[in-house]
Amino acid sequence: MAIHFIGRETFHTKWDNSLPPAIEIDSGDVVVCETEEVTGGQITPESSAADLANVDFDRIYPLAGPISVRGAEPGDVLSVEILALRPLDWGWTGVLPTLGLLPDDFPGPNLHIWDLTNLNYADFKSGIRIPLDPFCGTMGVAPAEPGQHFVLPPGKFGGNMDIRHLNAGNTLLLPVQVPGALFSAGDCHAAQGDGEVCVTGIECPMRFELRFTVLKGRSIPEPQFICRGPLNSKWEGKGYYCTASVGPDLFVGAQNAIRYMIDHLVHEYDLTPVEAYMLSSVAVDLKISEIVDAPNWIVSAYLPFGIFQ
Amino acid sequence: MAIHFIGRETFHTKWDNSLPPAIEIDSGDVVVCETEEVTGGQITPESSAADLANVDFDRIYPLAGPISVRGAEPGDVLSVEILALRPLDWGWTGVLPTLGLLPDDFPGPNLHIWDLTNLNYADFKSGIRIPLDPFCGTMGVAPAEPGQHFVLPPGKFGGNMDIRHLNAGNTLLLPVQVPGALFSAGDCHAAQGDGEVCVTGIECPMRFELRFTVLKGRSIPEPQFICRGPLNSKWEGKGYYCTASVGPDLFVGAQNAIRYMIDHLVHEYDLTPVEAYMLSSVAVDLKISEIVDAPNWIVSAYLPFGIFQ
Repeated sequence: MAIHFIGRETFHTKWDNSLPPAIEIDSGDVVVCETEEVTGGQITPESSAADLANVDFDRIYPLAGPISVRGAEPGDVLSVEILALRPLDWGWTGVLPTLGLLPDDFPGPNLHIWDLTNLNYADFKSGIRIPLDPFCGTMGVAPAEPGQHFVLPPGKFGGNMDIRHLNAGNTLLLPVQVPGALFSAGDCHAAQGDGEVCVTGIECPMRFELRFTVLKGRSIPEPQFICRGPLNSKWEGKGYYCTASVGPDLFVGAQNAIRYMIDHLVHEYDLTPVEAYMLSSVAVDLKISEIVDAPNWIVSAYLPFGIFQ
Repeated sequence: MAIHFIGRETFHTKWDNSLPPAIEIDSGDVVVCETEEVTGGQITPESSAADLANVDFDRIYPLAGPISVRGAEPGDVLSVEILALRPLDWGWTGVLPTLGLLPDDFPGPNLHIWDLTNLNYADFKSGIRIPLDPFCGTMGVAPAEPGQHFVLPPGKFGGNMDIRHLNAGNTLLLPVQVPGALFSAGDCHAAQGDGEVCVTGIECPMRFELRFTVLKGRSIPEPQFICRGPLNSKWEGKGYYCTASVGPDLFVGAQNAIRYMIDHLVHEYDLTPVEAYMLSSVAVDLKISEIVDAPNWIVSAYLPFGIFQ
């Protein structure tokens, strides 16, 4: 078993199965990667909200890779064991114009800078402390379809999935699309709620360590993953405040549940509405409580009391 | 503070704000209720799947109530503290024709009878044990709209919400619609996953104890709730196997994530597809992992390893 390294100077910003591999490895090898935050250095700890409105979208999503895994063939499964995730000193959460779950309510731009020098938690403001639960927002194999593809939308190949439980110790399974798999990762988050409602988690540069194994004789249609322990042990000892929305459309239900949560946060914790929106994005989980009592489904938003000191 | 009792012989099966109250109580009072399972006795421990196809839908949802709370007025919040929930000896999970998240894949009828004499867990089959996490599937206040309303669809008044975290120790907040609130509850479940995908949890007769408090000077648009501790402490020590589905429609995403989960259960645990569907309904949680990476959202289904011996 070999250990490889991909530094932050080696990256690509589009899915494209014609890109030459950054490295080629054997099944079972470990790769340590380092990536910039999602804007590729356009946002820094000194940035203001106005800088967000000027981000060049052609430079976002700097991904470490492609990593070619010898022997991986379309139809195989690529197992990605997430061995370590280490946020690098600072991060940001922002509202970008036209993006997010509530773009009309929150036109943006808004920016919050986080100090991540403590690896256990980060303070949002006095009395509100977010436990860090780092993961790569984007992990995927190169899609089968030729050409350059914007990284924002995820696909059956994985990609920008923003699944918050892909933490250290857990395993991601990806359906290989092209020979060698051509895996890439980046867009790292120090914490995020299920849903990532304002379109950003705690975006940060990160060093992370992954082990790759090609699984033959097994096929999956879309990404699957294994969590090796409790999901929210850092958060949930104190319980949750929850808002529900009832109606025939799950997307609208998610919007309303988050609107109610923002109202709750503003009312109970003296936050501005946009602070509450960003806090929801990094700490509130969206669940489908019920999807069978026709014609009305229920989406619920769960706020952990544990973030309040 | 007074304690009241509503036995299973006192019930109604439709929402209707013209129904006379079963009892009238003061804010702060406690009511102990007992209800039949959701079919009102049409399914028994001796029933077969064929009996499900013949259930008279006019007799389902026997609810304890209406409970009139003195002083509750439209615009107030009714706080319902869930003090105790006690399943009564047996339960059932079933697939009913045309209902559920996957009615075309699983036309039904199918029926599984559970032994609930152990109040900590129930065995699905050898090696698969579900921790009990009881709640009332239906808790609501009478809707403002006059007339009789079928209980199946929930509404802003609450009702058939099937929110699995309304367990003992937690508190439901409901927006009062009519004078006295006219609260009712029933349709109890001994356990259920977020989503209740096959349209039933572990349906069972239950005795439950609720405390009602009218909150003045506070208004909520739809139900909200407070969980006083960890959500899944009985389940999640061993982690989860998770399936994800990527696409532009959350409902289709939920369908696909559950289909993948059923495939996984059939492949790994030697279950029939319909057994896997019913097991998903009582033990698998649906989450919205991502709802901002346009145009593709991600719904994930989480299966706790803790149910396997």
